[in-house]
Amino acid sequence: MNQKISVIGGDARQIKVAAALSDHGYSVMLTGFCEDKVFNKTIKIENDVQKAVEFADIIVLPLPVSFDDVFLNTPLYDKQIDVCELMKLVPKNQLLLTGMISKKLKTLCNVYGIYDMDYFNREEMKILNAIPTAEGAMEIAMREMPITLHNSRTLVMGYGHVGKVLAKMLWGIGSKVTVSARKCSDLATIRTYGYDSIKTEDVAKYIGEFNVIFNTIPAKILNRDVLQNVNKHSIIIDLASKPGGVDFDVAKELNKKVIWALSLPGKVAPITAGEIIADTILNIIEELGV
Amino acid sequence: MNQKISVIGGDARQIKVAAALSDHGYSVMLTGFCEDKVFNKTIKIENDVQKAVEFADIIVLPLPVSFDDVFLNTPLYDKQIDVCELMKLVPKNQLLLTGMISKKLKTLCNVYGIYDMDYFNREEMKILNAIPTAEGAMEIAMREMPITLHNSRTLVMGYGHVGKVLAKMLWGIGSKVTVSARKCSDLATIRTYGYDSIKTEDVAKYIGEFNVIFNTIPAKILNRDVLQNVNKHSIIIDLASKPGGVDFDVAKELNKKVIWALSLPGKVAPITAGEIIADTILNIIEELGV
Amino acid sequence: MNQKISVIGGDARQIKVAAALSDHGYSVMLTGFCEDKVFNKTIKIENDVQKAVEFADIIVLPLPVSFDDVFLNTPLYDKQIDVCELMKLVPKNQLLLTGMISKKLKTLCNVYGIYDMDYFNREEMKILNAIPTAEGAMEIAMREMPITLHNSRTLVMGYGHVGKVLAKMLWGIGSKVTVSARKCSDLATIRTYGYDSIKTEDVAKYIGEFNVIFNTIPAKILNRDVLQNVNKHSIIIDLASKPGGVDFDVAKELNKKVIWALSLPGKVAPITAGEIIADTILNIIEELGV
Amino acid sequence: MNQKISVIGGDARQIKVAAALSDHGYSVMLTGFCEDKVFNKTIKIENDVQKAVEFADIIVLPLPVSFDDVFLNTPLYDKQIDVCELMKLVPKNQLLLTGMISKKLKTLCNVYGIYDMDYFNREEMKILNAIPTAEGAMEIAMREMPITLHNSRTLVMGYGHVGKVLAKMLWGIGSKVTVSARKCSDLATIRTYGYDSIKTEDVAKYIGEFNVIFNTIPAKILNRDVLQNVNKHSIIIDLASKPGGVDFDVAKELNKKVIWALSLPGKVAPITAGEIIADTILNIIEELGV
Repeated sequence: MNQKISVIGGDARQIKVAAALSDHGYSVMLTGFCEDKVFNKTIKIENDVQKAVEFADIIVLPLPVSFDDVFLNTPLYDKQIDVCELMKLVPKNQLLLTGMISKKLKTLCNVYGIYDMDYFNREEMKILNAIPTAEGAMEIAMREMPITLHNSRTLVMGYGHVGKVLAKMLWGIGSKVTVSARKCSDLATIRTYGYDSIKTEDVAKYIGEFNVIFNTIPAKILNRDVLQNVNKHSIIIDLASKPGGVDFDVAKELNKKVIWALSLPGKVAPITAGEIIADTILNIIEELGV
Repeated sequence: MNQKISVIGGDARQIKVAAALSDHGYSVMLTGFCEDKVFNKTIKIENDVQKAVEFADIIVLPLPVSFDDVFLNTPLYDKQIDVCELMKLVPKNQLLLTGMISKKLKTLCNVYGIYDMDYFNREEMKILNAIPTAEGAMEIAMREMPITLHNSRTLVMGYGHVGKVLAKMLWGIGSKVTVSARKCSDLATIRTYGYDSIKTEDVAKYIGEFNVIFNTIPAKILNRDVLQNVNKHSIIIDLASKPGGVDFDVAKELNKKVIWALSLPGKVAPITAGEIIADTILNIIEELGV
Repeated sequence: MNQKISVIGGDARQIKVAAALSDHGYSVMLTGFCEDKVFNKTIKIENDVQKAVEFADIIVLPLPVSFDDVFLNTPLYDKQIDVCELMKLVPKNQLLLTGMISKKLKTLCNVYGIYDMDYFNREEMKILNAIPTAEGAMEIAMREMPITLHNSRTLVMGYGHVGKVLAKMLWGIGSKVTVSARKCSDLATIRTYGYDSIKTEDVAKYIGEFNVIFNTIPAKILNRDVLQNVNKHSIIIDLASKPGGVDFDVAKELNKKVIWALSLPGKVAPITAGEIIADTILNIIEELGV
Repeated sequence: MNQKISVIGGDARQIKVAAALSDHGYSVMLTGFCEDKVFNKTIKIENDVQKAVEFADIIVLPLPVSFDDVFLNTPLYDKQIDVCELMKLVPKNQLLLTGMISKKLKTLCNVYGIYDMDYFNREEMKILNAIPTAEGAMEIAMREMPITLHNSRTLVMGYGHVGKVLAKMLWGIGSKVTVSARKCSDLATIRTYGYDSIKTEDVAKYIGEFNVIFNTIPAKILNRDVLQNVNKHSIIIDLASKPGGVDFDVAKELNKKVIWALSLPGKVAPITAGEIIADTILNIIEELGV
């Protein structure tokens, strides 16, 4: 518990990560942030990267680590940190916690013998991230639609992490929720929660009945056959990561309203998203017993 | 059912009212709207006010009827309708359905022997309007706060129409809900729904624990004693009609974040709000047996 | 807070009342119970009624006070307490808390100048009692029916205290809930909670669709016209106090399954029911400032 | 769809299976039932086993197939059907749907070249069976406890199929629900649903706080260390299949109240349980495309 952690780079979420780790008794240092951007005044800021690396038993990199594999992701910093230079500083066998690291940078870790773990791959991280994602999706629907979600007919396509939380929340505010899924077991689970269900293969047939359509499936399921049946007053909110679940060209041609909402947790609820990263990191540390 | 209804003036809600009444089999005429603002193309538009009045068995005025007691509330019209002139055209004993009519205009109705009823005073209207109000309030909280409502500690002050729906919806998306009320019977009802409760008199003591504070009580309850205990990261969303429930000057002095959100239904969900007016009008018509 | 309370007579609920009042710092004495029936060993038992009366600042009588206006309701006692004799012992202006006192005994209180208050008439008591009533009603339905309440079509007749809690709980375990009510405002509230609603006047028309019918209306609404449409596999659980809401003779003739379930709180959850009485008494004491 | 199905043996559930398959357009024959025990009068009863086998494209055996591997499970029949004799009659490659078939009988199927599938192993069957299991468990708690589940502190041990549905239903009627689990991902999911969570390893520490403890884990987790901390007024309802999750000898010694509730679906809701089997069989038939 006397361990030292350096949080290097990232947005408001990583400030929260640093604060939460500090609250749990770790000595925490924050690097890659302009001082006036850090709302939490109790965390020590050290902008010499080498010192930050030398200080740390555990290094935490941001989510994502980098957008271009050249510079670290540091939107709240007025300088740039070269990610390869950073890697060179990291000692062999050092525990390096990364978020959505690219293949190229992961290879670099291997080359340098760095012990890297990606917290974004942890199951509990994906499950908990579904909460701000779902809330962000609902906020979009509330903002864009001239009707309430309460008593609207909503379709949640896909019953993975996001689909589960979104269906529950929509139900909770009084929406008439239908979930589409492929597997018999998912359709059974949907029934236990009291939502209506349709098979994914029947989406084209029924989609015209829904006011708001949330897609969570990362495959081009909302193709022409499906899109042409979407009601003209309805909205499609696509939560699927790239390449998304909507044929956007066809949607545009057919004049369907589509919003592609990506990376919602960091945008709509950075503090909560930071807590989720911190909790995941705490689990990793506990499991490793470091 | 062969009755004729003129909907004169109003915003998008009244277009929906006209459409809904038409769907129920009434002959409906719409007055006080530029044609290109009316999304529903099946409703007959008649911009000669006299003809509209002569046509109608029942006249529906907007919500509110007027902002200045001079002109009818017609934001989607490029001309102005003099409300007193309109009144003069209305025959004696004519059923005139109004929304939040002022004392002055109500007196005018009496003088002219018009049989006016204010749909905004109907209990079911207030109850149903709580739905878009609550959803709008949640949308504000989601937009303004860097945390999710899920797992946040939220306080709903007052357990009237809005408090009831808001508490249920917050609970439904996973917020930790506390409701404050004065009456033992309200505190008991709150307990049946599983929310935590505090007495209104104890709000000052506990308010520091909440991330989001929704006020629904139209009295200056959020005074200096209460405001000074509000957490600096928290937000107050005041839903109380004028004069509101917050001492805004003190809040500003203490640097507390307050949003005073009025008339949410028409702003956040005009279609739903229009359906609610239409449903209320249908109830009135059914009860009158006209 | 140094006040003394005598709890005289009653069933397991009153033992809980005594225990809860004791937990709140009052000196409590229990009278009218065989020692081996009292599960809580910390409460002082005093079976001399006169001493119990003399001891007390406040006297609590059971629910109901008496079944025959002759003897106090003391099912856990091997002797009988004459209720009129008891009244004679009570000093003038003594605060006497009663439960469902009869008109005759109330008159006696007036004659003797006793300051009696009936806790059973308190609004919060009725509201909270709806919880064990609703749970008891669900337990009956679960026991009697070869189907689950989950996914069953259930009808709750009446939207008073019991109807509200019952509808919420049925909904909570996944039943398809419809509530019948007369008033537009109740129908609106039902809609805010997401239940289906029907007007009381339409019950005869739709009743055949429901698997379980819960009546809470104390009027003979389930008459021949309605009963003949009840599905033969369905059950009617009548929660209405005497004379009940079902024409039992006709139900028998038509071979409909009816269970008349009265006074559920004391039967299905005496400890919870006792806590509710205690909470109500604490409210009374606080309001009186005694 | 012109296929013929013989349902041979079983209890009320299999009558419902036969009825449901008949409703879906199959020709259905029922064998192994006394005529007066069959509530559904539209199903053809044929008690010559050989004829039933010859008739069928698909044969459905009961759940469980047999209790002793000698006779078919036929509680509603006044004769006995030798299960090995039955197997001999079944032609090679015949589709035989079984419920919890024993290893011995499964071997027999292999020997005879029968194409057997166990519907009880289907994921959706396990998921849906959790509904009557959870409701049955709640009914037991309601019946046995002098408090309501509403506002009680309940612990659900294990977050598998039954744990998930049970937690949701308990929450739905207003219980204060805590779920214990081992995996970080399960603990995260529990958090998304808003229940409190504890790690399985910490159960001994916290178990004293709960009024009702539901175990779903089929391992002796409720051993002396845990049992000794259970509150004396609390109840343990063990839903784990043999050998159960409670050390029953120790529980008895420590005077803890334990109910071991097995095979609830067929007992508490045979019609629903039959529908679940029928739905599962329909899925199997659809997937096989037979």
